[in-house]
Order: sequence, then C-alpha cells, then structure tokens
Amino acid sequence: MTQTPQDTDLKTDRSRLRRAHERGAYDRDTLYGVLDAMPLGHIGYQIDGRPSVLPTLQWREGDHLYWHGSSASRALRAMEGAEVCITVTLLDGYVLARSAFHHSVNFRSAMVFGRAEKVTDPAAKQARLKAMTEGLFPGRWERLRPITETEIKATAVLRIPIEEASAKIRSGAPKDDEADYDLPIWAGVVPMSLQLQSAEPDPANMQGLKIPDHLRHIQIG
Amino acid sequence: MTQTPQDTDLKTDRSRLRRAHERGAYDRDTLYGVLDAMPLGHIGYQIDGRPSVLPTLQWREGDHLYWHGSSASRALRAMEGAEVCITVTLLDGYVLARSAFHHSVNFRSAMVFGRAEKVTDPAAKQARLKAMTEGLFPGRWERLRPITETEIKATAVLRIPIEEASAKIRSGAPKDDEADYDLPIWAGVVPMSLQLQSAEPDPANMQGLKIPDHLRHIQIG
Repeated sequence: MTQTPQDTDLKTDRSRLRRAHERGAYDRDTLYGVLDAMPLGHIGYQIDGRPSVLPTLQWREGDHLYWHGSSASRALRAMEGAEVCITVTLLDGYVLARSAFHHSVNFRSAMVFGRAEKVTDPAAKQARLKAMTEGLFPGRWERLRPITETEIKATAVLRIPIEEASAKIRSGAPKDDEADYDLPIWAGVVPMSLQLQSAEPDPANMQGLKIPDHLRHIQIG
Repeated sequence: MTQTPQDTDLKTDRSRLRRAHERGAYDRDTLYGVLDAMPLGHIGYQIDGRPSVLPTLQWREGDHLYWHGSSASRALRAMEGAEVCITVTLLDGYVLARSAFHHSVNFRSAMVFGRAEKVTDPAAKQARLKAMTEGLFPGRWERLRPITETEIKATAVLRIPIEEASAKIRSGAPKDDEADYDLPIWAGVVPMSLQLQSAEPDPANMQGLKIPDHLRHIQIG
C-alpha cells in the first residue's frame, strides 16, 4: 500500500522511516492533520519479549500524543517507561490500476515513536481525560456526571512526545506502466471514508431526553 | 476502548490476551469474520531493537494470514522469520455514557501472533497475490495486464499461521453505573462505518471505457 506515497519526516536523519522512492515533506501540520483526523491508533510495544499491537483511542495535545486505559491493564503497565510506536491510519480509497502490481490504496498514516510516560498527578490526569472527551464531543464534559477520584485512580493515562515521527500519504489516480495506458482496462479510484450515522438513543434514557446539540456536529475522518 | 468487550481466544492458555472482566468466546468464525471484514491491518514488529507498527493490507487464506510489500522493504525484511503481531480493527461507533468514565467505542478487533514466514516459490507468490486481488475485487485478476516475473520478484509475500489469536468485540448501548441512569443526561451510540463511494475513473482511461461489473459490488466493513 505504499507504492507512491508522500513521506513526511520530522527528523530527516530517521532514514528507516523513508524509502528511496518516497518523496519527503517534513512538516508538523501534515502529521498533526492525520493524528487529529482519526482517534483510533495502534500501539506497538513489547510484552513477554514479543511484539504486540493494541488498538486504542489516541488524542493529541500540543506536541504530545496521549492514550488511556485501565490502571490494571497489563498492556498499559508493559508500556510504561518503554519504547512504543503509535500508528494512526485512514484508508481513503482503493486504487485500481491496469496491472495487479500497481494496485494500491489511498491512505493517510502517521507513526510516532517514543518512550511512554505515565501521567501521575490526579489533576493532570483529569485534565487530559477532559481534553480527550472534549476533543471527540465538544461541550459534553460539563454535562456529564462528574468524574470521581476512584475513576481517575482506575484510569491510566500515558503519553509520548511527538519528536520522532513520520507521515505517509498516498492520494490520487493509479500510476501505471507507460505501455499499460493503452490497454482497454478500467482504472480509477474507489474512495472510502469512515462515516458517522444517526445517533441511537440508549433505550434506558430518561423519557423525553433529546439528543443534545453538542452531538449534532461531531465529525470523524 | 475495552470496557466491556467480548473476548474470543483461540488458545485459552494465552491469558495475557484476556482481562479478568472480559467474557470469553473462542471460535474461529468470530475471529475470521473480523479479519475478513477489514483489509487494513497493523503489523507490530521489532526493528533496530525497537517496536514499530506498519499499516498494511492483509488477507486470509484458510488458516494463514498474508501480507505483501516491496522485496526491498526494510520493514518486511526485518519481519521475515521474526515474531510479529497483526491487529485488525473496525470502529463501529462512539458509545456515549452518562459519565466520562463509561464512554467507550463499539469495535471489532482481531490480533494474530506468529513468526513471519516468507513465501518464496514464484508460482505460490503469484497464487497468493491473485487471491489478494480477487478477495478485494472478485473477477478483476483475469482482466488485468498479466503479472510479470519481474513484478513477482519485486514483491515480498509474508504469512503467519492463525494459531495464536484473539478477537475482542464491543457492541450495543453504554453500560452506566446504576445510579446514573436516573440522571437527565442523553446516552446512546453514534454508529460509524467505513463506506465506499462512487468509483472515480482515471482521467487517463481509454475513451469509452465503462466501469466493469466486477467493481459494482465490492464491499468493505
């Protein structure tokens, strides 16, 4: 899926993130655009001496990437203080070429590498969890039953600085071998995107409750 | 995002894949359903002594999971013969509870662990690449400019057996603290799904080419 991506490295010396045929860009805006567009991240870490990949929600505040989970989570405890890699990917389309070889996908992807650090101060943890909630559902935090000390204690919040990172993006039409353009083979792109559907109220909602305005404008992708 | 998932382990002795509060299922059908629904996978592997996560297309044939890339790819060469973890995740919805703590997401996720093995026989590689293409776009392979020996040589195909694996699924309404159900706070689910849009023909297509039938029925999710 990386036939002709544009490659965006924050650290140009990080050559392992780039392949020879990829073009470099190197701006934070591109990287942050990918991270902010997709809350789902996949965290690579080592546990029991083996690689593992945990799907989790991630969010960005300034130049840090955050995620959270249960304080009892073995995965999160294994990450603390350890090297991790968080990859965030959006699939944007199938790219159908005239040969199997040049088939590809359009996508946006960001990778961030770093040593995971635990947020320990309860007030800081609460602020981070609020930022996460507000990032997804602006205006919701203040309307919720307030978070408790026990809940904050039961939640682990981890982060890495966004220092060593790269983005890869592929967009646009297929790139075929020159001679293949003369073949009567349909080529093109089938775009795809993650779409939100209409909200489904919890059947246990208090009678008469209407969907609040702050949920009418949420977006993803 | 794993507050109340259903957990499906193929190997019940793999306790690190399960958390105490998760229910177990243990069937291959559930796992294969997740793997087959989402071509995007995230592969965790070790490179330069650090974890890394590569987004890539994956496909299943029988009890093996496959992926491919450039034979020159440093990532794929690092995976060969090494332990990897492939995680495949579909986000199915935001779960909005009455407290921040019980917010969650509906999702389906599969993890497969194993030692990556390279497919070396050219005929076998070609058969795997055909299976990948046909899996995504049934009927397309035979209509393409035939694959060449050089292209097969330039493509690395890797696989792992699906022996050590687990699935996690969360679906349905939020689960709130009993007392919170009496609060006038809207709770519910905002479903989401990856949707294909109308195909966009390559402007370089031969004049008069129409989108073929085999691309009218492709699906994802």
